[in-house]
Formats: sequence, C-alpha cells, structure tokens
Amino acid sequence: MTTPQPTGWQGIQAEVLRRVHAREWPPGHIIPGEVDLAAEFGCARATVNRALQALADAGILERRRKAGTRVAMYPVGRAVLDIPVLRQDIEERGHVYGYRLLEQSIMMPDLVCAQKLGGNTTALHVRAVHLADDAPFVLEDRWINLKTVPHAAEQSFDTLSANEWLLHTVPYTKIDVSLSAQAASEEGADTLRLAPGAPVFTVERTTWDHDDPVTYVTLRYAPGFELHTQIGG
Amino acid sequence: MTTPQPTGWQGIQAEVLRRVHAREWPPGHIIPGEVDLAAEFGCARATVNRALQALADAGILERRRKAGTRVAMYPVGRAVLDIPVLRQDIEERGHVYGYRLLEQSIMMPDLVCAQKLGGNTTALHVRAVHLADDAPFVLEDRWINLKTVPHAAEQSFDTLSANEWLLHTVPYTKIDVSLSAQAASEEGADTLRLAPGAPVFTVERTTWDHDDPVTYVTLRYAPGFELHTQIGG
Repeated sequence: MTTPQPTGWQGIQAEVLRRVHAREWPPGHIIPGEVDLAAEFGCARATVNRALQALADAGILERRRKAGTRVAMYPVGRAVLDIPVLRQDIEERGHVYGYRLLEQSIMMPDLVCAQKLGGNTTALHVRAVHLADDAPFVLEDRWINLKTVPHAAEQSFDTLSANEWLLHTVPYTKIDVSLSAQAASEEGADTLRLAPGAPVFTVERTTWDHDDPVTYVTLRYAPGFELHTQIGG
Repeated sequence: MTTPQPTGWQGIQAEVLRRVHAREWPPGHIIPGEVDLAAEFGCARATVNRALQALADAGILERRRKAGTRVAMYPVGRAVLDIPVLRQDIEERGHVYGYRLLEQSIMMPDLVCAQKLGGNTTALHVRAVHLADDAPFVLEDRWINLKTVPHAAEQSFDTLSANEWLLHTVPYTKIDVSLSAQAASEEGADTLRLAPGAPVFTVERTTWDHDDPVTYVTLRYAPGFELHTQIGG
C-alpha cells in the first residue's frame, strides 16, 4: 500500500505530526526548509508555511528566524474527544436507553451559572437523569439562556431531553469543556444512588452561538464511567 | 475579512463541520452533491468525497446511495484534547514545578499491567510525584515494557521523570487514553495528601510503537484539577 500524498495545509500538518510522533523527526531535530517540503509534498510554499505555523502555535514545532524550524524538545500529543448525544453514547455502549425528567422551571440562575450565561438573565433550569438498562447513568443539570433561545420556554423536556433538543435545534460556534472528579453532593448522590462523597466523573460545558451564551450544563456520571479516546492507531 | 477558501480534504472537512455546527446545514439537511461542492471549493470531486466520507465515518453525515448525503439527526461534536508533558502543564498553569521519585524497580507486572503491556514481560516500574508550588499535583504510576524499550533499564529517573524521558526518546504511533473519577486508595491518598476514598481524576494511557506496547501509565491528580478543552471558538 502506498501512502497517498498529503493534500492541503491540514494534510501536511497531519503528516508532519506523524513524523514527530514516530520520532522520524525526534525532539530538537531541525526539519527541512519550507522550499524543500513544498517540493516533497508538491504544493505551494505558503501551504507548508501555514501547516508549520499551526504546529508551532500548538507547541509542537519551534520556529526561529535564522536557525530554521525544529521539533520542540517535548512535543505535545493531541487526541480527539467526541462529544456525543447522551442517548447515542449509552446505546453505543450496548445498553437500553431510558430518560426521566426531574425538574423544569424558569428562574434566575445562581451566581456561578449567571456568569457562565453572560450576566443576569432569566434561564430555563432542566434537571434529568439518563438511564442505561434502567440504572442511572448520568445526571444532566442544565441552564438554557432564554435571551439566546427564547423558544426553549415553550418546549417540554418530559420525553425528549434538552441535550437532544438543543443539539437538534440550536446552532453553536463554540463549546468550552471542563472535566474533573468531584465528590457526590447529597442531592446528586441520591439520584445516582451513591453514597455522598463518592467520586463522580463530572463534565461541565458552556456553549455559545458566536457571542451569545446558549447553555451551561453539568453532567455527573455514575461510578464505573470511563471516557475513551486515542491518538493515532 | 474574507474567509480563505478551504484547501485539501481536511480543509473541506473542517468547513463542512463548521456549517453543521453553525446549523447552516441543520440536522437532517440534504447537503449539495459532490460535483457542486467541488465547484464551490475549486477542487477535485475525489477530494470532496474523501472529506464527506471521513465525516460519515465519524457519524456527522449519513450517506445514502440514492438519496444523497445528509446531516445526521444528532451530529457529534469533536474537541481536541492536548496530552502535555506534566512539567509543562504545571508550569503553564502558573506554578513552580517540582519532582520526586518514589520508586524505580524492575519486576514482573501484575495481571492488569501485563495485559496492557502485551503479555508476560519484565517491566520497569516507576512511581513518582509531580509537584506544583511544593504541593503534590499528580502521581505518576508507570510500567515500561523492557522488551520494547530495553535501554530504559539503564536509565535513572531520580531527576528527569519517565514522562519526559519517554516523550523525548521513544517513538510512538498510537496512544489509548481513558479518563475516569476514582476513589483514592490508601497508598495514593497518602502521597496526594488526601483522605482515602476522596475523588481522584484519573488518566490511564497505553502507548504503542506500531504493534509493540511501550508503556502503561496511571496518572492520579490532586483535588481541584480540571482538564480543559474546547470546540470551535
């Protein structure tokens, strides 16, 4: 099998990254110049430049005006993290999906949520549990900004989750994700059938459509949950 | 500002993904045919085909022989997760980095580790703690396959961590990553100065060079640790 020639700046970026990870170009190695790489890849020098600049921004290459471009001493690895619909994630793990709405109400968010939602605004608060084979799998605690998504106020989330409805309906241009391990609060512990203080894998996400905050959600997973990803392979 | 024309199949993939996330092409939407997209992007039809196929493989598009290509009803989001050198991660969070080796010994791995390292093999076991401003930040519990990396046996990790040495020295082509929340064991709790049972953000990674397992590491983070990433923005 012949490896196809990489195309476009992202293709060249991927090929350079592969060489760095495979240590064909080890840490500290001075890589060929842009002109030589452009000849090798059969593309414009500007295309090579764009690829190398993106890798320099990511801390994988170091560019010096006179000394050329070298591989960073400790190049960072990059993995892709999928952010799936909860229902699909549960089904893909081989379970029967279930859903139960716990609470839906329009209210003023507390201080932390108000900050995430971009200042004081009325918000829709939705709490629900997603089940795998009838056992709680993840607790969804969500705030939806009603200034950005006013029609959420007329929506009922008693059968379709806010997670699915939003992904299906509302555009976004940016999501911030934060992963942590937290001790179960009394309330969360009760829903997930845990002892208070038990370790809970926690995902916090804030979603924007351009500059408008759409939603802030905290997902608390039941014990045994693992999030998998990989680099290369 | 004019958006530059996307180039290469990865560039077209990124542009299609942007349209899906921004809901310019909403869930269920039938997107233009390959010929039209090739004309729009000024590239070969095969390039468009490769981009669309990659997005279909990722569950973002659905391709049907006669009905054309449409956006999946619940397209998945994808974020990039950086896997940094621990020292750099700690320094980038604004702390003074410290390091202390706890144990380094050649031994037969236990059953779980042996499986990760591809069967029975002698391995180098290294335990160390990485400090931020003199406080434990993350506990590194690592097994290095001495069949794949025999020269690790002559290396001392009392000042340079195995994490840095491996990233600096040993090639890899694949890393599996698993993230979870676990209760602190008595041993880990002691090093991280936690109460046993406290929630610990845990990263498990297995690294291969082609088919040869290189290393299996468990990282246990002190309380308050958060892993950040984002989509778009």
